[in-house]
Amino acid sequence: MKTEMLYGYHPVNEALKACRRKIHEIHFAKTRLSGPIEALLARAETARIPVKQMLPAQLKAATETDMHQGIGALVSPFPFAPFAQVLDPPVKKTTGRFLLLLDSIVDPRNLGALIRTALCAGIDGVLIPKDRSALPSPLVSKASSGALEHVTLAKVTNMADSIDTLKQNGVWVVGLDKHASRSLYDGDFCGDLAVVIGGEEKGIRPRVRKKCDYLVSIPQSERVNSLNASVAGAVMMYEAYRQRWASGI
Amino acid sequence: MKTEMLYGYHPVNEALKACRRKIHEIHFAKTRLSGPIEALLARAETARIPVKQMLPAQLKAATETDMHQGIGALVSPFPFAPFAQVLDPPVKKTTGRFLLLLDSIVDPRNLGALIRTALCAGIDGVLIPKDRSALPSPLVSKASSGALEHVTLAKVTNMADSIDTLKQNGVWVVGLDKHASRSLYDGDFCGDLAVVIGGEEKGIRPRVRKKCDYLVSIPQSERVNSLNASVAGAVMMYEAYRQRWASGI
Repeated sequence: MKTEMLYGYHPVNEALKACRRKIHEIHFAKTRLSGPIEALLARAETARIPVKQMLPAQLKAATETDMHQGIGALVSPFPFAPFAQVLDPPVKKTTGRFLLLLDSIVDPRNLGALIRTALCAGIDGVLIPKDRSALPSPLVSKASSGALEHVTLAKVTNMADSIDTLKQNGVWVVGLDKHASRSLYDGDFCGDLAVVIGGEEKGIRPRVRKKCDYLVSIPQSERVNSLNASVAGAVMMYEAYRQRWASGI
Repeated sequence: MKTEMLYGYHPVNEALKACRRKIHEIHFAKTRLSGPIEALLARAETARIPVKQMLPAQLKAATETDMHQGIGALVSPFPFAPFAQVLDPPVKKTTGRFLLLLDSIVDPRNLGALIRTALCAGIDGVLIPKDRSALPSPLVSKASSGALEHVTLAKVTNMADSIDTLKQNGVWVVGLDKHASRSLYDGDFCGDLAVVIGGEEKGIRPRVRKKCDYLVSIPQSERVNSLNASVAGAVMMYEAYRQRWASGI
């Protein structure tokens, strides 16, 4: 039985709320009992999850980090969604599907940050490639402030093939590429849509880039090199949000 | 003579390009000579800056970090701008002044990330309070990917009083507050404008919040708590960018 050790208040709390992972045991360090952690432990006890007190040094060893904030949870692995569920989200929105494709994000902190923003921006599902990408982990959950515990996320063998399937199912696919001549603000992000964001160093891989219906770039002042990957992704997701729900057009 | 030790390729490279700090000496670790670092060292020699080779362990000790990427520079302190320069930027833009007020950002990584985005989004100047805020440092320069070396940034004793001065000089001041009922997308960000972004935990402080002409919030899905401070700031700065330069209105 595979398990992993979530740590930090938000990951443990959101895992409890989401009811997707089996939570085998919750560990807390007795020197750090804030009000929110006390409330979390009470909810865990109501849910009949074993709660175990540890010394801070034991919790540090169990979570393999200093960033545990006095709380950890031994849980089942991340529940990947099947591709079909991302392609066809259970709750159909009148505004159409809104998907996020992350092509080769390698920094787990960026992956977590992008997933956190994705949930805030109303993304229905996320695709990542199974190779050459950061994968869900306790660090990703921490970096996502627990958003990972709620996201519908599938990992696919071949992102270019998955884009073909999306397009056959009526989804428009728009990639973010800093060399694109079309501005983000000239893009159309309404209807069934997937936005593609590439890796930190090289952006979207060529085979995946070619499959996009079109590419856009974020206009930038010339003085500095470029936006951070997770910030660029956020600006794109929120421009889509604005067009889909907030523009009143 | 006060000095500090910048580290990492972008901070050292941008400090060289910006010509704002005195660069006393550049240090590099002999085991790590990438093409870009070789080119940087050549430019340093042209500029008659002493270049010194070190062992990686010595560079780690000198920079007090593992994140030095084989390069460090002993430089004069960050060149703060006077408030008057932020209030009245030397190059007047036809679109009006575009300023960023960061009220009590305490995480140096968030400060760096926000400054990086600010330069990309065309911000003319940044204000921070002198107390209860992260201040420019080598870590902030690293987190900004060197953008700190170019930004016009003043630190002020009293942010609320500074807002009064801005308003007396015809600048509209709009704060980002997650409890605001007005959506970001119903804000008007054209003309002489300052956007205010608050600290990670509590947002904009009450006295500063009261001084804002109005407050806006970023619409969010209900499932997760909120956007990261540097992501929220980026979404706001780029909505202002869109309205000022990209909307074609």
